[in-house]
Amino acid sequence: MAILLDTKSADFEPRFATLLGAKREDSPDVDETVAAIIAEVRARGDAALIEYTERFDRLTLKPDGLAFSDADIDRITAQVPPAEREALDIAAERIRAYHARQRPEDAEWQDDSGATLGWRWSAVPAAGLYVPGGLASYPSSVLMNAIPAKVAGVGRLVVTVPTPDGAINPLVLLAARIAGVDEIYRVGGAQAIAALAYGTETIRPVAKITGPGNAYVAAAKRRVFGKVGIDMIAGPSEILVIADRDNDPDWIALDLLAQAEHDESAQSILITDDADFAAAVTRAVEARLERLERRAIAAASWRDFGAVILVRDLDEAAMLSNRIAPEHLMLCVSDPQPLAAQCHHAGAIFLGQWTPEAIGDYVAGPNHVLPTARSARFSSGLSVLDFLKRTTLTRMTPEALRRIGPAAAVLARSESLEAHGLSVSARLDHLNR
Amino acid sequence: MAILLDTKSADFEPRFATLLGAKREDSPDVDETVAAIIAEVRARGDAALIEYTERFDRLTLKPDGLAFSDADIDRITAQVPPAEREALDIAAERIRAYHARQRPEDAEWQDDSGATLGWRWSAVPAAGLYVPGGLASYPSSVLMNAIPAKVAGVGRLVVTVPTPDGAINPLVLLAARIAGVDEIYRVGGAQAIAALAYGTETIRPVAKITGPGNAYVAAAKRRVFGKVGIDMIAGPSEILVIADRDNDPDWIALDLLAQAEHDESAQSILITDDADFAAAVTRAVEARLERLERRAIAAASWRDFGAVILVRDLDEAAMLSNRIAPEHLMLCVSDPQPLAAQCHHAGAIFLGQWTPEAIGDYVAGPNHVLPTARSARFSSGLSVLDFLKRTTLTRMTPEALRRIGPAAAVLARSESLEAHGLSVSARLDHLNR
Repeated sequence: MAILLDTKSADFEPRFATLLGAKREDSPDVDETVAAIIAEVRARGDAALIEYTERFDRLTLKPDGLAFSDADIDRITAQVPPAEREALDIAAERIRAYHARQRPEDAEWQDDSGATLGWRWSAVPAAGLYVPGGLASYPSSVLMNAIPAKVAGVGRLVVTVPTPDGAINPLVLLAARIAGVDEIYRVGGAQAIAALAYGTETIRPVAKITGPGNAYVAAAKRRVFGKVGIDMIAGPSEILVIADRDNDPDWIALDLLAQAEHDESAQSILITDDADFAAAVTRAVEARLERLERRAIAAASWRDFGAVILVRDLDEAAMLSNRIAPEHLMLCVSDPQPLAAQCHHAGAIFLGQWTPEAIGDYVAGPNHVLPTARSARFSSGLSVLDFLKRTTLTRMTPEALRRIGPAAAVLARSESLEAHGLSVSARLDHLNR
Repeated sequence: MAILLDTKSADFEPRFATLLGAKREDSPDVDETVAAIIAEVRARGDAALIEYTERFDRLTLKPDGLAFSDADIDRITAQVPPAEREALDIAAERIRAYHARQRPEDAEWQDDSGATLGWRWSAVPAAGLYVPGGLASYPSSVLMNAIPAKVAGVGRLVVTVPTPDGAINPLVLLAARIAGVDEIYRVGGAQAIAALAYGTETIRPVAKITGPGNAYVAAAKRRVFGKVGIDMIAGPSEILVIADRDNDPDWIALDLLAQAEHDESAQSILITDDADFAAAVTRAVEARLERLERRAIAAASWRDFGAVILVRDLDEAAMLSNRIAPEHLMLCVSDPQPLAAQCHHAGAIFLGQWTPEAIGDYVAGPNHVLPTARSARFSSGLSVLDFLKRTTLTRMTPEALRRIGPAAAVLARSESLEAHGLSVSARLDHLNR
């Protein structure tokens, strides 16, 4: 049973602060193991990948078996039933259409001084996408990571995915193919991250690595950061639903449980201004929990991290939402637009009762890789921008240098950087000769 | 004396690879010390800040003396001579004008299904800017960090700067005032980063921390990352100059030395297609080094990390530039535009002989906080985007849910996430009733 808070209670503030501060993840310290694995892959390349795959995935590979061949992919993806194939196509098309609008513009202009200024965006030359094996091997995440990279224009997009005992989810391979992934390798764990960052005989290195993974993968990403770019390290998933009483309690219960079923550390919070509705949702959650396939996980998450918060009005709801800065925010109220305008910190907002968060996990179009653990205060979900970088452009004319160069020379001298100043004044001296 | 490479030599490839792989920074491992400092500041707040400031900066502060008062700032900035004041104003105005163009657009549209999709940008609520003390206390860096934050709309912008023995660079305070900084505190080191991330009685926490610092500051930023956002950890500065023989060797020598004088780990590389010009630049560097104020630093940098590379033609120069991915790239050739189009990985490009890199350090307008150590392959310089985050927006209608909901339900089932599917299908069942 989730905790129940009421903003009118005297002890609300300390209890809310406890809720905000609750640490929901206990990452094992695997840093030394990971450092050793990375060093081995750097030193021995494919041979190390093959040994780790034998040890961790109980799978014997040859160097030419590291990659899935086109024939492998044809054969395995042929198993996908038509309904799932069609659903993946719909999702890919909508995700592509949404992300295509994120492509930023280059710019170039001349200013008063005659200087030409601007910037130019260009794609990261090669990117690697880590895909977990087993239960968390989600084809939807393959689409959400791979499509923005391809929309950005990444020339070479590589997937690594562990195949424990040789098992692979055919939908993962199909999603990779639909998204335009160029190479897929049967390796996982820290060894896959090391291969992507440093390269081996078979796997050429990439410049950016994205995608979720376990504690080993996360630690490896942190370690190779700097050598390559990485995405954020995602924490457990979370949702905040703000709902008035004009909602079906069962729908809201299912939205809360859809987060809770992800894992035991996930967090689902309901904020409402109606005590009876709060009670009805709580009862609906309990009822649904009795038969849910993943009830053990969802019940633990709801018990340990779930919360129902009673507020005086929607303004108060918005204020609390800004303190929570949720990854997912559903606004199930009759007029969600003004409420959305008050919610400044959220990874993704879902407006109105016809927009269950799960629609955003798969087919709405926006990315489902979103900032967790209050980081929506300062970061954004995955986008095309994560696979682009910007080069700034400056071109002075003699006249422009004459006008603004003296200020640069003054500042250089004030910072005791003589050569900086001389590089400007030598040119000015020539112009003034 | 810098090394001389020639692409026509048999041993070029291994020697160039060595140049690329040279590790230019040896960060001391200060992680344990930093962890202890952060823990102390979290536990004891202002009292810990005051103790560390006493110990490291030999300065006794009271809690109400942590901040510079307006009167302090008035008094200290009054010492700045008019020429420097005017130069800072010119720089600030040009930096502001450039960054104002970086503000991204919000978007909202309706798609075929009737769903309304979009995104909204909003500012990070509060940001902290670390400013080093002593020699590396650059007013230009204050402008380059603070102005993008204010252009983004950051409501509260805080500066921390150590004042060893009570000393402060008046230009730093003036730059902060010109840029619109809201609070300035006399603290530095890991303790300042801890205060910005976790807050103390006097210093409220921020959501994002940027700015350069020593090994302690860098380690502290890495540690608080996740709790708050941070900018990249910058390495030693570097420049690549591509120049044909129609240049004054002395100007190019000064451009190379302007990087070299930053610190002994800085790197300056010249690529040219003319052996005589290469020799002339090398002679000019040696001549300038004889009298340069910072000749000890610049000479060490040029000796240990400098390089002159002879190429067959400019196409080859562009190819090498893309492997170097320099922070700063000067193109001193008669027609720099086509060459710039071939250079895909660079933090900032300076086109033509009238655009010394130093102009970009101070007054051109683009940011001088740029990706180092080959990270221009996957990252960008500081910009307004670093102080904004994006919230995605989705609003379905009953009709839109009817059209795309079934695909979401199929994918949810395929991922064994039953509640995800039920949250969609419960609504669809209602619509189809």
